[in-house]
Amino acid sequence: MINIEALFKISYGLYIVCSGDKNCGNGFISNSVFQVTAEPPKFAVCCSKNNFTAEFIQKHNAFSVSVLDQNVSSEIIGSFGYRSGKNFDKMAGKTIIYGETGVPIIINECVAFFEIKLLQAVDAGTHLIFIGELINAEVLDNNKEPLTYSHYRQVRKGVAPKNAPTYIDKSKLEKAKTSTISKRYKCPSCGYIYDDASEKLKFENLPDRWVCPLCGTEKSDFFEI
Amino acid sequence: MINIEALFKISYGLYIVCSGDKNCGNGFISNSVFQVTAEPPKFAVCCSKNNFTAEFIQKHNAFSVSVLDQNVSSEIIGSFGYRSGKNFDKMAGKTIIYGETGVPIIINECVAFFEIKLLQAVDAGTHLIFIGELINAEVLDNNKEPLTYSHYRQVRKGVAPKNAPTYIDKSKLEKAKTSTISKRYKCPSCGYIYDDASEKLKFENLPDRWVCPLCGTEKSDFFEI
Repeated sequence: MINIEALFKISYGLYIVCSGDKNCGNGFISNSVFQVTAEPPKFAVCCSKNNFTAEFIQKHNAFSVSVLDQNVSSEIIGSFGYRSGKNFDKMAGKTIIYGETGVPIIINECVAFFEIKLLQAVDAGTHLIFIGELINAEVLDNNKEPLTYSHYRQVRKGVAPKNAPTYIDKSKLEKAKTSTISKRYKCPSCGYIYDDASEKLKFENLPDRWVCPLCGTEKSDFFEI
Repeated sequence: MINIEALFKISYGLYIVCSGDKNCGNGFISNSVFQVTAEPPKFAVCCSKNNFTAEFIQKHNAFSVSVLDQNVSSEIIGSFGYRSGKNFDKMAGKTIIYGETGVPIIINECVAFFEIKLLQAVDAGTHLIFIGELINAEVLDNNKEPLTYSHYRQVRKGVAPKNAPTYIDKSKLEKAKTSTISKRYKCPSCGYIYDDASEKLKFENLPDRWVCPLCGTEKSDFFEI
């Protein structure tokens, strides 16, 4: 018997994982970054095979990890967490430095960063676990707290995006609710609520390319509340 | 350049990972437990090749994970985190249930548990990454907070044991301190301080089998403060 609520007792941080070079790069928000050995320091990161960044990591054999600040803006979470880099340049307008491997490192609203040289990619089914050696690590701001998944869920009321290893399909958790004339939909990234009752168009009639007016999260990521 | 301080910006929980059966079992405290895929739910745990529990997991092809309560006693941390099961029965006196694979699951002072069937073991150097499918998950106490590594370090002043992937060799961090006649040594588990000035024997003259009088942590894990 699997009680989904137990999964929320696992503690994670939230990070931007990036790869690429000065010409072209991409990144995604990950909750599964962890140190796997101390001597030498090696890190692992879990990445959906559907993530555009997975291709970059395998091509460039390196990636960066930026530790998000607890007070990171919804725009950063929205652009890296809920949109695909396949049709949107996530790196535009961000503050970026480049590591010795050439990978981009996002330093906007982050407290620390790591640069990691890829050693192996482990196939875990829908996801790859990228394992690599740490070659650079720096603190950006010692006065800020790292954002945790627990804080993101409990205080900021965010949920995991579809490609996250911790994604939970709400339809499996809850019985179908009785249909009502007016429905409300919430942005998983910034919490914006679209209320059918106060809008001209019902949410379901909005075009597919409609995005959250606050943070740019795609319509398909909104969930009914 | 690797700034060791940056490593403390990665967020982890703290867990007891166990394997074995009703006759013989063992467990260790891990900070690297994480979900790697959602469909099906798979978990990974990082384990030193020197950990006695690694042998149990490979023999029984299953393991359990218990999520420690934020207010867990130093005795539980001391016995699972800083002592080897090779010469000490860690399971004695604990409250244990057995999963459908037969593995022991510690439920003392824990908020949730997981039972995982081993699928693969990835060699990451000094550590193995055990990946398996989640077959049981339950919440034990919804009113208690899970212990995080950050809370353990900042509030409880604990440090990682030698087999942890996040272990930091203090001698590499700090310049050798000027020798003084009276030295002080701290237990990494419960914080007990052995002060040469107020004891009959100097710490360095205590026998190797000496353990922390409060929580049983081994002498070799104490560090000078």
